[in-house]
Formats: sequence, C-alpha cells, structure tokens
Amino acid sequence: MQSPYLLFIGDARDQLAAKTAQGVADWRPQQCLGQLKLPGCQADLGINELSPAAAAAAGARTMLVGVANAGGVLSPAWTETIRAAIESGLDVASGLHMKLADVPELAAAAADCGRQLYDVRHPTQEFSVGTGRPRPGKRLLTVGTDCSQGKMYAALATEREMQKRGLAADFRATGQSGIFIAGHGVSIDAVVSDFVSGAVEWLCPDAQPEHWDVVEGQGSLFHPSYAGVSLGLLHGAQPDALVMCHEPTRRHMRGLPDWPLPDIAECCAANLAAARLTNPLVRMLGLAVNTSALAEAETGPYLEALEADLGVACVDPLKHGVGRLVEALP
Amino acid sequence: MQSPYLLFIGDARDQLAAKTAQGVADWRPQQCLGQLKLPGCQADLGINELSPAAAAAAGARTMLVGVANAGGVLSPAWTETIRAAIESGLDVASGLHMKLADVPELAAAAADCGRQLYDVRHPTQEFSVGTGRPRPGKRLLTVGTDCSQGKMYAALATEREMQKRGLAADFRATGQSGIFIAGHGVSIDAVVSDFVSGAVEWLCPDAQPEHWDVVEGQGSLFHPSYAGVSLGLLHGAQPDALVMCHEPTRRHMRGLPDWPLPDIAECCAANLAAARLTNPLVRMLGLAVNTSALAEAETGPYLEALEADLGVACVDPLKHGVGRLVEALP
Repeated sequence: MQSPYLLFIGDARDQLAAKTAQGVADWRPQQCLGQLKLPGCQADLGINELSPAAAAAAGARTMLVGVANAGGVLSPAWTETIRAAIESGLDVASGLHMKLADVPELAAAAADCGRQLYDVRHPTQEFSVGTGRPRPGKRLLTVGTDCSQGKMYAALATEREMQKRGLAADFRATGQSGIFIAGHGVSIDAVVSDFVSGAVEWLCPDAQPEHWDVVEGQGSLFHPSYAGVSLGLLHGAQPDALVMCHEPTRRHMRGLPDWPLPDIAECCAANLAAARLTNPLVRMLGLAVNTSALAEAETGPYLEALEADLGVACVDPLKHGVGRLVEALP
Repeated sequence: MQSPYLLFIGDARDQLAAKTAQGVADWRPQQCLGQLKLPGCQADLGINELSPAAAAAAGARTMLVGVANAGGVLSPAWTETIRAAIESGLDVASGLHMKLADVPELAAAAADCGRQLYDVRHPTQEFSVGTGRPRPGKRLLTVGTDCSQGKMYAALATEREMQKRGLAADFRATGQSGIFIAGHGVSIDAVVSDFVSGAVEWLCPDAQPEHWDVVEGQGSLFHPSYAGVSLGLLHGAQPDALVMCHEPTRRHMRGLPDWPLPDIAECCAANLAAARLTNPLVRMLGLAVNTSALAEAETGPYLEALEADLGVACVDPLKHGVGRLVEALP
C-alpha cells in the first residue's frame, strides 16, 4: 500500500464509525492528504476535503476505506465513489470483511485502470508453521486483560517514544487499523490457526540486535473467544518485553456480559508464563491504562494504587506518554 | 467418502509421518484393503501392498493420502501416483492443508474420470466466534506434552471403554486421521484462528446431561508452533475431564530439535489452569502414556513412579486399556 492517502469516511453515522480513518489521521498525519465524505456524513477528521481527482492531482496514491459498520459490509452507496477513485488513478484499500475485489464493478474498474485493490483483512500470503527459533533483534508486544482496550495505541505510542529517544523501532500491525497506519502487516485473526505463530515470526523477523519491533497485540489470554489467537501471537512474537493494556471501567469481557475480567496480576503472570516458552528472559514493563472513562480526579489515585499493587509503572499513554515504560526496557 | 480404502503412505520419512494411515488401519481394519508406498518409504502398516489398479480390482473405492509433513503440502513426487489412482477408478481423500483440487493435473484427471477429490482438512461450513456459554452434556478432552503422542488413540480408546461400560459417548474428531476414522469432524488447525473455539463449540454442542463427547486434542500448550490451536480447542471444548498424553522417550518437541519437553506436572497444571476459564470444575483424570518405545521391563516401573509423582492413574491405553481413567470420571 502506497502513501500518501485519501481517507474515505463515506456516510459515517458518527465519529466512532470513522475510527479506522481517525487512527490513520492521528498517527500518520503527514501521510494523509485529505478526507472524502458523502452527503449525511456525521464524522470529521479535521483535515482538507478532497475529491478523488484533486487528491490524485495532489499526489495521493491510495484511498483508504476508513469507515466501519455492523457486519463489515461495503455499502452499495459507496461503490460510485470508490470507482471514481480508481478511475482517478488511486489504489483502494479496505479492512472490511466484504472484499473490494468481490464487487464486480470495482474489480472491473481496477483491472481497466491497472490499479490495486487491497483487502487487508484477508491475508493473501502463504505462511509457514512457527519454529520458535530464537532470532536477533528485540521485540515488545502489547497484551491485554480484554479486547479493544488500546493495545494498538499503546504500541504506536511506544514506537513514537522509542524513536524520540533515538532507538530504532518499528510498529508491527496485526489488525486492520494498524495495517492502514503501518502500510503493511498481517490481520492475524484471519490467518488459519496452524500458521498464527509462523505469521507473526514472518511479521517481525530477524533484525539488528538493538532494533525494536513493537508488535500490536490482539484479544486476551482470558477471553474465551480469542485466547488461542492471543497465545499464538505471544509465542510467535517471542517478546523481550510486554506491556499489559487495561480499561478500568469495563464490567465484563467484551461481547460476553456474563464474563468477568481477570485479576490483573494473574493476567500479567499468565502472559509472562506463556511468553517464557519462546523467550525465557521476557519482562513485563508495566501497564498502559486507558483512563478515558475515569473521572479526572480518580485517575491519579487509581494508577498509584495499581502501581503499588503490581510493582511496575502504570500510565495512560495518551495522558502521560509511555516514557516510564520505555525507561524500563531491558 | 466411500470405503474400502487403499492407504497411500508415499515417501513417509518415518512411521510417525504415516500416522494418518496407521490410525485408519488400527481403528477401521475391516475397511482397509492395502497400502501403497513409493521408493524410500520408511513406514509400514503391516498390510498388503497393492497398486491402485489391483486395489480397484479388489473393490477399493477411495485412496486415502495417509502421509503427513510439517507444512501439510502435497509433494510433487506423489502426483503421478495419485493420478494413477484416479485413472484406476478410485476417489482420493486427503487431509493435508494443500488441496488435491488445487493441483491442476489431479483436478483434470478427476474431472476426466468422474472421480471425487475430498480435501477433509478444509471445513466447508462457516463457524461463529466462540461464546464460552456453559452447555449441557459432558466432555472429555485429550491434551498432551507434545504433538503426535497418541491423543487420538487415547480418545478412541476412551470412547470404546465408555461404550463398553454402557455410557453414552461419541468420539469427536479434530484432525485428518480422526475425520477419516469417524467419518466426520472438523480439522481444527485449518480453521481461521478467530473461529477455533467457536468451531469446537459447534463440534461438541449441547447434549444430554449424562452424554460424553470425547474430543480429540491437538498439539500442546507447550509447542511453540501450535499452542494457540491447543488453547482455542481447550476453551471451546469446555472439558469436564482432561487426559494428559505423553511419550516418555521423546528427547525434544516434535520437529524442533532444540526444544525440550515440558515438565509433566507443570504441563498438567497449565492445562487445568487454562481450561478453568470455560469450565471451573475441570479435572485431570490421569495420563495416557505411549510406552511403545520403552523396554518391556521398564514400562511398569516407569508408570508406577509417574503415578506416585503425579497422584493420578498413569496407563498405556494400548497395553492396559483406559478402564482406570474412565473409573476416575466425575
């Protein structure tokens, strides 16, 4: 996927529906030339409005479909605009369940115009079975007490902080939003289960001894729907360092109203124990806590108590940065 | 898939590589007319050698590709023989990742001859994400310290023993050999990772309160290539009872010469801890030990020492049966 990008947010019914595009605009602003809306769009990224033709003229290479909806379908209302983007010379990338390539009009337009369609949720690559072979370079993985708590943001904040401190670091994306931000990656929950750890070994391969790959985690070892994905990712990443992500106001595991969250210390211990299989020296750097739903006055005391309890740094990446986590690197 | 079968074991590099064929020969001997090898084959099933033409003449309906390798590929060295089987009037069934139907010569031969190609490792149904919802009926799962140690055999022996004692029990297949033996099942390592626990929930669904599903385990929580599959299977099976499978002469994890086996007690504890997420009442019934590579005089003392150490019944299913494990059922 080539940047710069035009961010298509279609007829997003609220800001949340455009969160994929928002992530790219937040973390790679220099690669985003503009946004494209349809009538009725209720989201805004705070960047220039550009037509496909104007974006192409300004140097855009790819239009990202940065709007989500229930079911992950490509709305028929978007087809004409996506075709116009292709005809303006842009590639198009989507992370939705339904493939761009499965819409005949879009497949035909791409073929006619010699443009690429990227369905990043559907890996086209063949992966090998994981080997567990120790490999050079260092890796950090974000893990979590649950899904959808900020593992991607924590990883991106860590990459940025490492680079600010002069460390060589690369974010490695394992989900659709992350892949848009990085420009590449593997949508790990769409990989055939036998090849999950092998796909992660491919994603963060041999590197220079002091180089850090900062790998985006998925799911939770304590989520009964997705723990297998999380474990394969943990083993394949072979992490030297973990960051545990947590959202303190959540009452149950995402999507499962009867399922309590794990004890945080137990969750840290279980992740470390599992990670030691492929990297016996793994360490827990600390917690990245998403405190956006806590009252301002509660945040400090909550993090202090957690830190006293767990004995590692506990920060909100968006409020405090992740400097204290990076300082704890091995 | 129609029986009787011709069992193709190709150029298997050792007896384990032919375990798919061996399983069918052991558990469905009346359906196996013969075996077919290529030069250099290091395995033997102890049954008649038959060419495809001779097998067809003797009444065989399907040739089973009963040889496995690490990547699940169809070796080009097998193509000519598989085509000969098709041209002799046999259907062909494979449990490898790579599909028979994706080899142009084989697809063409099957079309020309009106024969069927069965790729049993590729589930045709759509699965849902697992829910972890407690469900009626009882389930036993075989787990292991490593891959390829006898988890399927232990499960089949347990089904047979339960039925002998008048319990309602069904073997549930999760791998290619098991599917060949049971006639149905889900090749769990071929399921997209997001749906592994959901596929197992589908495989052993709500049942009568006293009914036992005996679920074939896969891999090991301590195998760096496959642990994610094992964990998704463990959570989806929601087992009331576990049987730990072990092969005492193995020096390293299968396929990974540098990888030691886990401590058995630690492996039992880790499996129980992980299984408690979806069934807090889970129990370890005991160990199913494959002592085929131990000297006869060593077997008794080894199992006695193990039993004293672990405090649960330790038996070789093939030598002693699994009566003592079934007696320990909750």
